Amino acid sequence: MMRDEAIGLGKRMAGMDIRSRGFTERTQLETAVNSLLSGVEPLPHESVASALSCHRTLASPLLAPRNVPSFARSAMDGFALSAICITGASESSPAILRVVGESLAGHPPNFTVRPGGAARIMTGAALPAGTNAVVPIEACRQLGSTVEIHEAVVPGRHVCAVGEDFKQGQIVLNAGRRLLPHDLAVLSALSLRDVSVIRQPRVLILVTGDEILPAFSEPAADRICDANSPMLQALIQRDGGQVTAVAIVPDNPSDLCAALAANHSADLILISGGSSVGQEDHAPAVLSKMGTLDVHGLALRPASPAGFGRLNNGTRVMLLPGNPVSCFCAYELLAGRLVRRLAGRHDSLPHTVKHYPLAQDVKSVQRRTDFMRIRIVNGMVETIPGGASMLSTVAMADGFILISHDSAGCSSGDLVAVYLFENA
Amino acid sequence: MMRDEAIGLGKRMAGMDIRSRGFTERTQLETAVNSLLSGVEPLPHESVASALSCHRTLASPLLAPRNVPSFARSAMDGFALSAICITGASESSPAILRVVGESLAGHPPNFTVRPGGAARIMTGAALPAGTNAVVPIEACRQLGSTVEIHEAVVPGRHVCAVGEDFKQGQIVLNAGRRLLPHDLAVLSALSLRDVSVIRQPRVLILVTGDEILPAFSEPAADRICDANSPMLQALIQRDGGQVTAVAIVPDNPSDLCAALAANHSADLILISGGSSVGQEDHAPAVLSKMGTLDVHGLALRPASPAGFGRLNNGTRVMLLPGNPVSCFCAYELLAGRLVRRLAGRHDSLPHTVKHYPLAQDVKSVQRRTDFMRIRIVNGMVETIPGGASMLSTVAMADGFILISHDSAGCSSGDLVAVYLFENA
Repeated sequence: MMRDEAIGLGKRMAGMDIRSRGFTERTQLETAVNSLLSGVEPLPHESVASALSCHRTLASPLLAPRNVPSFARSAMDGFALSAICITGASESSPAILRVVGESLAGHPPNFTVRPGGAARIMTGAALPAGTNAVVPIEACRQLGSTVEIHEAVVPGRHVCAVGEDFKQGQIVLNAGRRLLPHDLAVLSALSLRDVSVIRQPRVLILVTGDEILPAFSEPAADRICDANSPMLQALIQRDGGQVTAVAIVPDNPSDLCAALAANHSADLILISGGSSVGQEDHAPAVLSKMGTLDVHGLALRPASPAGFGRLNNGTRVMLLPGNPVSCFCAYELLAGRLVRRLAGRHDSLPHTVKHYPLAQDVKSVQRRTDFMRIRIVNGMVETIPGGASMLSTVAMADGFILISHDSAGCSSGDLVAVYLFENA
Repeated sequence: MMRDEAIGLGKRMAGMDIRSRGFTERTQLETAVNSLLSGVEPLPHESVASALSCHRTLASPLLAPRNVPSFARSAMDGFALSAICITGASESSPAILRVVGESLAGHPPNFTVRPGGAARIMTGAALPAGTNAVVPIEACRQLGSTVEIHEAVVPGRHVCAVGEDFKQGQIVLNAGRRLLPHDLAVLSALSLRDVSVIRQPRVLILVTGDEILPAFSEPAADRICDANSPMLQALIQRDGGQVTAVAIVPDNPSDLCAALAANHSADLILISGGSSVGQEDHAPAVLSKMGTLDVHGLALRPASPAGFGRLNNGTRVMLLPGNPVSCFCAYELLAGRLVRRLAGRHDSLPHTVKHYPLAQDVKSVQRRTDFMRIRIVNGMVETIPGGASMLSTVAMADGFILISHDSAGCSSGDLVAVYLFENA
């Protein structure tokens, strides 16, 4: 039986060209990214409550449905009047007007100011009919039912005119804008209860492996907690996606097939683990069977066993290595770009990039991209050694550097681009 | 009656030293920030589910409660064996071992490998008793119940040793760390269901003004929608705080007193509007009455009517101008720092800063800080004209610049620090 098993394994190895592809030929990162994003458009739009729209991507240009302000209002506390009534007024030669009423914010004035009259007015209050300017309180002296005006003003002075901030019909924000906190103020000022945004990509996470316990669970002999899905969930949320479910799938093709087939609503499925070319790595074969495996095996360290393709129903599937650092690398350099593209965001890396000199020589090999965890120590970049299973190498890192496929390494003192974790 | 009212107003103006302070003396921004943050410590810690801890601030150093890995496991698919059994093995002179079993991930091996034996092993599987190294499958050739081993290895080769990633008791993450997506992987790998983090500051938002309609509501004559609270909520969330409630409060002291008194759980109360020195600006006087008004009136454009203090029960209160641009400015330069400090974050501005040359001369006055909305056009900084009520000036901005109180302006071509909105 052991012989049969060995022969069986050999058959499987020989019969699956994807396995040999994974080993004999590795796709360059740039080629893989181009293939992954080729023809990918942002998802369709949906309407969401403006109050919940922060960080969402505007699906179409935002037009002002009305003028803001919708009424002429005072920008100051003072007196509203007709500018022509106080032509030439000054401190030495004040104009004297009758005070005929008061306009307070939120209390529409129901009187008209005739020539020779003025109205007390507060910031934000509507200008009474018959007035076109405001003189600030500091330049006025009220004496009972009259007021001395100590400076002349031009019509419109200290008045927020109708449509001064936003004119009905104007484009206020462009399509594709990721809504910022202050944009919510704009939406509210325009009385827009809802806003049309790009739908959030729905992502299903399948974590494969008989040894995998649910995230954060109690330890058990010879088994490990799912570290990847909590990380992926937080990254997907960062990138504007929405995780619809996380499922742990045993190491066998039929369970994985069933998990993939069961899903009909995901825009993207991430499979963590089982992506390589070993006996228990079923994901590439299953994806080949249920759709297409477009790329498998990358010239990328430490995420060479990554791959991607589509199910026959069109759903995109990304194969992420099970080792947490490899999984992180493959998400950041590949899957995350896809999530952002689907969410209508720019697909470039979201990290703040700063340049620092290397504290040491860094070796790589040509025709492979290296994702290296680094620390900034005394303003210089130190790489953190350790394998793809070592989460500690990420936990202690300030960010990462990428050694391009056309470089065999860098020298101490070279300025390198550091992708910082802090603000990503 | 008009006379009485006018006299009454005069009395109020004369009687309130805070009003004259607001006008005659304005606190420098830096002085105000120092006063605002003086003695402010991060809030106490609380325990939260690790799954929900992303972006929270670690309250104490995170110690590894156990070794990770907790068992020696294979880093490769191959054969587990005792390294000493294959000393000198090579392709031309392979060692031949008996295959005595198989170790799969998640299926603990219940056998012992004696000298001269080997076990098939998969990545992630536990090393059987009696083995201390793994030879990758590529360097092995299984023939029925025996296996040819084509390379020698040292003990520990391709084995993730117990505690190799995290050693029980070691500090894994430092206190004060803002938890990143990949830190959640660390928490899960350590089987930490909960984590101790700084409590989120609870913020109450009071929006004052008889003219204020609820955010995003239908327009009504002479009234305006609350634009500030949706913006403040998004900013507070960005800064690690939590908005407990938003209330719209009419323009009178008793309602404002009641709204302030009703709150017992907020760490911070933001009052939007009514912060200046006009007839309807009740917030400074109410705060003075119910506690202390520490600073009122800033040498800051466009947020000079801002102020802050504390209620007698110790709750911090921030007075933000009602004009949305002023409110935004006062939040970003003052209140936001306080929220971040309370949340255990760094209180510096969270924006990405880049330097660009000015496209034009920019005028300011000495002894006043100017917060100017700007656009980047052809790699140069253009300021956006428009008053504090003009939300459009923020909506079209890429960020802002600050003209310091010790500068009377900058010249075209000067390199200035731009605080970019994009990644804040």
